Amino acid sequence: MSDAIDLRQKLDLFEDLWHPRVVAELNDIQFKVVKFEGDFVWHKHDDTDEAFLVIRGEMIVEFRDRVVRIGEGQLFVVPKGEEHITRAEAECHALIIEPRGVVNTGEA
Amino acid sequence: MSDAIDLRQKLDLFEDLWHPRVVAELNDIQFKVVKFEGDFVWHKHDDTDEAFLVIRGEMIVEFRDRVVRIGEGQLFVVPKGEEHITRAEAECHALIIEPRGVVNTGEA
Repeated sequence: MSDAIDLRQKLDLFEDLWHPRVVAELNDIQFKVVKFEGDFVWHKHDDTDEAFLVIRGEMIVEFRDRVVRIGEGQLFVVPKGEEHITRAEAECHALIIEPRGVVNTGEA
Repeated sequence: MSDAIDLRQKLDLFEDLWHPRVVAELNDIQFKVVKFEGDFVWHKHDDTDEAFLVIRGEMIVEFRDRVVRIGEGQLFVVPKGEEHITRAEAECHALIIEPRGVVNTGEA
């Protein structure tokens, strides 16, 4: 790979929601861009943390005991083993950073 | 950690150049914000890739056989083992993503 990856340009290449695309890899870590709106499902990842960097809009990560709002230009790491649900009140575009092979829904 | 991390706000907390600050961790991976301007030194990392996401400005990664420009909102992964130098013609603010314990100058 010889060029820098423009995250907003990559997001402009597709329309469908809840369908992350891998745009780069760092060792065993994947960088994925995704568009979503509405609610995902409650789940957790027993073996790995999961990071979100919001590119456009705002997303929410709700835990059983707290709610975290992630705005544009903000980064948040969901700790492994913590049950959570991701949602967005309006269409949100984000970069997901997590190990290769992680299943979206974790152990759900 | 319970709040999202605003990368621009974190960068506004310090002035010094070439001094990365860890703002979050994902498993053994660290997210570090850094300001820099001018030339770093030629080096390589034999055991790991290294990712840069530019937050403000533009940076250059020069390899022995090519030059990559990374603009605002762009991501680039320097492959492990490839000798390179990072530089910025004007002050650049970036997010570095790499494993904990990586030394800036690699094997240089």
